[in-house]
Amino acid sequence: MGEGADTPVSIGEKQLAQFAAEAETIINELASFGAEADGGVTRLLYSEAWRGGQEALAGRMRRMGLEVRQDQAGNVFGRLTGMNAAAPSILTGSHVDTVRCGGSYDGIYGIAAGLIALRYLKLTCGQPQRSLEAVSFCEEEGSRFPIAFWGSGSITGFRGEEHIRGIYDDNGIAFREAMEAAGFGNPQQPASRRDDIAAFIELHVEQGVILERMEQTIGIVDAIVGQKRYVIELSGEANHAGTTPMRMRKDALSGAAEMIVYLEQEALRLGEPLVATVGKIEAVPNTSNVIAGKVTFTLDIRHPGEAELGSFCGAVLTRFDEIAHIRGLSMDCRKSLDVAPARMDHGLSHRLEQICQAKSLSYRRMVSGAGHDAQVFQRYCPTALLFVPSCRGISHSPEEYTLPQDMAAGIAVLIELLYQLGYAQGG
Amino acid sequence: MGEGADTPVSIGEKQLAQFAAEAETIINELASFGAEADGGVTRLLYSEAWRGGQEALAGRMRRMGLEVRQDQAGNVFGRLTGMNAAAPSILTGSHVDTVRCGGSYDGIYGIAAGLIALRYLKLTCGQPQRSLEAVSFCEEEGSRFPIAFWGSGSITGFRGEEHIRGIYDDNGIAFREAMEAAGFGNPQQPASRRDDIAAFIELHVEQGVILERMEQTIGIVDAIVGQKRYVIELSGEANHAGTTPMRMRKDALSGAAEMIVYLEQEALRLGEPLVATVGKIEAVPNTSNVIAGKVTFTLDIRHPGEAELGSFCGAVLTRFDEIAHIRGLSMDCRKSLDVAPARMDHGLSHRLEQICQAKSLSYRRMVSGAGHDAQVFQRYCPTALLFVPSCRGISHSPEEYTLPQDMAAGIAVLIELLYQLGYAQGG
Repeated sequence: MGEGADTPVSIGEKQLAQFAAEAETIINELASFGAEADGGVTRLLYSEAWRGGQEALAGRMRRMGLEVRQDQAGNVFGRLTGMNAAAPSILTGSHVDTVRCGGSYDGIYGIAAGLIALRYLKLTCGQPQRSLEAVSFCEEEGSRFPIAFWGSGSITGFRGEEHIRGIYDDNGIAFREAMEAAGFGNPQQPASRRDDIAAFIELHVEQGVILERMEQTIGIVDAIVGQKRYVIELSGEANHAGTTPMRMRKDALSGAAEMIVYLEQEALRLGEPLVATVGKIEAVPNTSNVIAGKVTFTLDIRHPGEAELGSFCGAVLTRFDEIAHIRGLSMDCRKSLDVAPARMDHGLSHRLEQICQAKSLSYRRMVSGAGHDAQVFQRYCPTALLFVPSCRGISHSPEEYTLPQDMAAGIAVLIELLYQLGYAQGG
Repeated sequence: MGEGADTPVSIGEKQLAQFAAEAETIINELASFGAEADGGVTRLLYSEAWRGGQEALAGRMRRMGLEVRQDQAGNVFGRLTGMNAAAPSILTGSHVDTVRCGGSYDGIYGIAAGLIALRYLKLTCGQPQRSLEAVSFCEEEGSRFPIAFWGSGSITGFRGEEHIRGIYDDNGIAFREAMEAAGFGNPQQPASRRDDIAAFIELHVEQGVILERMEQTIGIVDAIVGQKRYVIELSGEANHAGTTPMRMRKDALSGAAEMIVYLEQEALRLGEPLVATVGKIEAVPNTSNVIAGKVTFTLDIRHPGEAELGSFCGAVLTRFDEIAHIRGLSMDCRKSLDVAPARMDHGLSHRLEQICQAKSLSYRRMVSGAGHDAQVFQRYCPTALLFVPSCRGISHSPEEYTLPQDMAAGIAVLIELLYQLGYAQGG
């Protein structure tokens, strides 16, 4: 295919340094909206900080000469209209919202990359054949309300009015009330649902340690893992820690411990890319001198293969049942999340691989263990997801960081792909 | 020795039923002081409920013709003065305070048994050679303030002014302030410290399942276990549950689970009377999709042998250190309690055994896994501790219960021992 050869632009060291500087400027500017004392950022959907962030991004898009559009949900689009204006757009971007006290790179890096790429292409290559759009999705994290992917979901039809009814934040504010207070949800505003997007490309920080440990610059995501989450409740007998002989106990916490050890062993035995985590545990009465009568813990299991995910979960829960039975505990298991694995577009991933090769960038095809807007889009249009390294794998933390040269490399790859889709191939 | 033969009183079925009814009356009356909506009782030291309870018991003592004395700490004594009034007394009783939302039998059964025994002996046998005293200790549980055994401790010198300085309850009320508000701590009141007690006999509900499971009526306690408690803090790395491969984790909760499983296995391997419990656990951040970066849990280990207790704790903590090291976790271990095992008086236990045999009561020599006032007294004077069964071993709960016939059997044994010590042998 030799797509690399189609690009009229050769991006040199100086240009890469320029991209890195621009990305840092945008990331730092956005971090000022919702800045916390500890260096973290809290920019929850429809908050004041969120409005400030979206307005700053819209302002940047306008100054770049993009056609700006904010929809009913609060997504912001900046469009570089193509010569074939009727052809579906190529969309790139990520989400503007954060977790509580999160980092500055999660989401924003992908938005910044989109802006920088469109600006560069506009200046260097002029008007594209096909429209290119940068997007700042209003919401992805599910941090304020118990719903995630509101931004990408409202565009693709994955989310609608029915998903936000009866949903409140921690302060008892209804979703719609918050949306309207922020100036959205008005039927006069442009509808969120779109049917004119030809492809979606998301650039994101890895939020994991793999690229850094493997000393690779670009991660080309083949699949986003499916996730199953469960809440396991074990009931035994709360009893006196001194007067109850070991053999007469129904200790819910020892039972939970045996399950956690088993889960870890099995996950290690099956090996990558499976991950299995117990992150939350609560014992009752949770007193040092009373045997725990009840323990509740969560189970988070992820794998990119639907069959593998299902069979691992089935085997684990069967063994948990046995452990509970042997120990005289009763076990209740409630599924709290079930997200199918999502496959990215083969063609786009192949293009990305060739771009990395042409640019002599180290890369790996990989699985994303975290959820992303790309998983919503992949059901709707050809979608690509690409990662740059996260220092020490840290994310959702004030310590989140990605090196400037890595950010620049990701932007260079994005530019090449956008060029191929928007300029070289026409509408 | 044939002490049984010395008793002039033969206690028949009818009398036993009478004891059971009297015990239930006293227990029910006391349960009205601090009654909770769920059927539990909360009678914390120096509270209104506590004052009501102690006054009701003092009233009963007075009506029985006992000489009542309330000391500076709030302990209540009812004395049946012996012919040899100068000879040290034989003391029997237990504590009036409860845990939060505890049961009606813990402590109160022993007080009721003392009152019923003294009343019966007074009516049947007249004035003893040596003074007999029933006592209601003001405090044993350590439920309101972070100090336990204030009642028995203030009598024996195990507790003093220095132990209550700078101690506050959950509402920020100082110990001395609470004591004075309840009308105690006044130097004009009788001093708590005594040097005129010849022996102490405590009757208590087992708070465990052994007597019930073994279908035995009386437990003769040879020793109260020593206890060591620790707080273990494991620090690993909080990380994304989706993006951190299993082999790159420092999961503090998996480490804690491995330790809990090991602890249980080792305790089972060593066997009775050792007990080892992790009753309390806290994970940070305690979120389903984040690997736990920190876990804190408690360790409660009990054994009646000091050497066995020490070597088990040492071995467990050494293995915990290894587990932490292998997993790349850092471990901090803080000792929070260290109570030496306490031995009851051989002579008194032997008498109790003979009494049970003479009365054809099923019994067992056993270890107490729970702490009791008897452990404070055993350093001060010959001390005996005897148990009656707790239904399903439940204690510190509204469901605490002991069958009337078991309560009566315990009272009959107590009467016989008090007779031997107070009447048959003289001062």
